[in-house]
Amino acid sequence: MSKTTLGNSQMPLVGLGNWKIEKDVAADVVQKAIEIGYRHFDCACDYGNESEVGDGLHAAISNGSVQREDLWITSKLWNSYHAAEHVRPAIEKTLADLKQDYLDLYLIHFPIATKFVPFEERYPPEWFFDPDAAEPKLEPVNVPIRETWEAMEELKRSGLVKNIGVCNFGCSLIRDLLSYASIRPAFLQVELHPMLTQEKLLRYCRQESIEVTAFSPLGGESYYSLGIADRSESTLENPIVKDIAAAYSKTPAQVHLRWGIQRGTAVVPKTSQPERLVENLDVFDFELSDEEMKQIASLNQNRRFNDPGDFCESAFNTFFPIYE
Amino acid sequence: MSKTTLGNSQMPLVGLGNWKIEKDVAADVVQKAIEIGYRHFDCACDYGNESEVGDGLHAAISNGSVQREDLWITSKLWNSYHAAEHVRPAIEKTLADLKQDYLDLYLIHFPIATKFVPFEERYPPEWFFDPDAAEPKLEPVNVPIRETWEAMEELKRSGLVKNIGVCNFGCSLIRDLLSYASIRPAFLQVELHPMLTQEKLLRYCRQESIEVTAFSPLGGESYYSLGIADRSESTLENPIVKDIAAAYSKTPAQVHLRWGIQRGTAVVPKTSQPERLVENLDVFDFELSDEEMKQIASLNQNRRFNDPGDFCESAFNTFFPIYE
Repeated sequence: MSKTTLGNSQMPLVGLGNWKIEKDVAADVVQKAIEIGYRHFDCACDYGNESEVGDGLHAAISNGSVQREDLWITSKLWNSYHAAEHVRPAIEKTLADLKQDYLDLYLIHFPIATKFVPFEERYPPEWFFDPDAAEPKLEPVNVPIRETWEAMEELKRSGLVKNIGVCNFGCSLIRDLLSYASIRPAFLQVELHPMLTQEKLLRYCRQESIEVTAFSPLGGESYYSLGIADRSESTLENPIVKDIAAAYSKTPAQVHLRWGIQRGTAVVPKTSQPERLVENLDVFDFELSDEEMKQIASLNQNRRFNDPGDFCESAFNTFFPIYE
Repeated sequence: MSKTTLGNSQMPLVGLGNWKIEKDVAADVVQKAIEIGYRHFDCACDYGNESEVGDGLHAAISNGSVQREDLWITSKLWNSYHAAEHVRPAIEKTLADLKQDYLDLYLIHFPIATKFVPFEERYPPEWFFDPDAAEPKLEPVNVPIRETWEAMEELKRSGLVKNIGVCNFGCSLIRDLLSYASIRPAFLQVELHPMLTQEKLLRYCRQESIEVTAFSPLGGESYYSLGIADRSESTLENPIVKDIAAAYSKTPAQVHLRWGIQRGTAVVPKTSQPERLVENLDVFDFELSDEEMKQIASLNQNRRFNDPGDFCESAFNTFFPIYE
C-alpha cells in the first residue's frame, strides 16, 4: 500500500470533510467513518456541527475503536474571532465541542475579519453580525492578519494545537505572513479540483515547505444546492475522467481524489453516505500515469466555487473580493 | 472639455509612462511632453532614467514652460529598499535625480522585498542582488509590508511626498494594509487594459476610495520586445476596437486610453515619439457609449503581461508568484 500521510506530516491523505454534514447524523457518520478506517477529520466552527462531530469522536475513542493519537483533527478559526483576545477562547470552544484536549491543526478560516459576536449570543456566528437586519451585511473589522497569526502562534506554544496554518490565502498573503511569522504556517487549505488546479500556488507552497489540503476535491458538488454552481459543470461527468475511471474500474470521484493525492495534497471529501465513505477512502490501490494526471489537469478553467467575492454580494449584500 | 483629473485627486488622467524611455532621449521627451500639455509623469527608480527625466523636468520648470505646482510627479520605491531604514534614502535619491523637492505620489513598486544593494554599488539595483552570479536569482528578504508602509507614512508626514500608495497589490493585500494603516493608500497602480480588466479590483478600490492608475493601458505593447507577449495578441488590431476608433475618427490607441479614463482610472502610456505623445493626450474630445465600453471590456481574458510569477522564472531563474 502506498504512503497514506501527507508530505513530511502525519496528516492522513484522505480526510472526512464535515462541512454540510447534518447535525442529526454527524455523530453516527463520524463513528462509521472511523470504523471504515478514516483517521483524519476536517472540522470548523463555521460548519455548525462540531459538538455532534465531537460526540462521534468521543464515542469512538471511549469505546476503544480508535486511539486519540491515531486521529488527525483539524479545525478552523472563524472570521468573528480574529482579534487577539478572541483566538484562544475560540479554540477552547471548539475543543470543548469536539471533546478533545488538543487539535492536530488549527487554521485561520479566511483572510477576513468580521465584528465579534459573543458565543452566548450566537454560535457559530456565521457571516453576519446582525442576521436579523433588514439587509444583513458583512461587518469587516480592522484586525491585521499579523495580530491573528501571533495569537495562533500562542496556541501552538501552549500545546492546544500541534500545527497552525491558514485557509484561502494566496501567495502574496502567505509571503507577507512568512516575513514576520515566528512559527511558520505548516498547512494551507484551499479549494482545489480539476477545474481549479492552482499550479503556481501549489508550487509556491512546496517551495516554502507548506503542506496543502484540498477542499472541494470533487469540484462543484457542495455548491449546486447553494445555486453557486450548475451540475452541468461537473467534472465527475467528464468523458476524460470517466474513461480513466473505467480503465481502473474506479469511480470518477475516486479518480478525482487519487489525482489530488498524487499531486501532493491531502483531500477532504464530504459525504454522509456509508458507501461513499468507503468509496472515497479506497484510492490507494491504483496509480494514475503522468499522462492521465496531465489530462485531468487540462480540465482547469480557474473555476472557483467558494469565492466570497462572488457569493457575498448575492447572499450577503456585501461586495467582498479576496482572490483578485 | 471634460474633467481631466482623476476622481477626487489632482492627478491628470493621462500621464507619460517613463518605463523604457531611453536615457539619451528622456530629457527631450519630457520637455516635448510638457510643451504638448502633459502634466503627469510616471517615474520609478527601476526605470533607470530618473536623472534624465529630471533633467527634462528641471529644464521645463527653469525656462518657465511650466510651474512645479502644475505638475504631478509619481515615483516608486524599489524592491531592494523595503526595509524601514532604506525608504527615506530611496526617495531622497529619487528626488535628487528628478531635481525635485517633493513628489506628488510615491508608490511601493511591488509586494516584493529583496536584498539591499547600496546606491554606490549599483543603481538602480534591478531585480538581482548579484547579477554577475552564474545563475542570478531573486534574493527575497523578510520585510513585512507593514514595515515598509509605516516608513512610507513617515515620508508623507515629512512632506517629501503628498500622497502614498502601492502598485501590483490585490484586494487581500490592500485590505490587510488598510487594517493597520495610519495613513491609507490614496492610489493603486496596476496593469489594466482590455485584456485584463480586473473589474473586482477596480470596484474594491472605488469602495475603499483608492484611486487607480492603469499601467500598460495599451496592452502588450511594452512586452513584445521582452518576449513576454506576442504582437498577434494586440487589442490595437482588434476589429471591435478598430470599428469604434473609425466611428470617432480616432486611433485604436486613443480608444484604449479613452476606455481607461471612462472607467475611472488614470492611464500612463509610454512613448518617445512626438506624434504619439500628441495622440495619447488627445482623448478628451469624444466619449464612448455604454455599449462600446462593454464591447471593449468583453475582450477581457485575464491576460496579465507583467507577472513576476511568469517571467521571473525564465528571466530571473526564480519562481516568484505574486498574483496567485
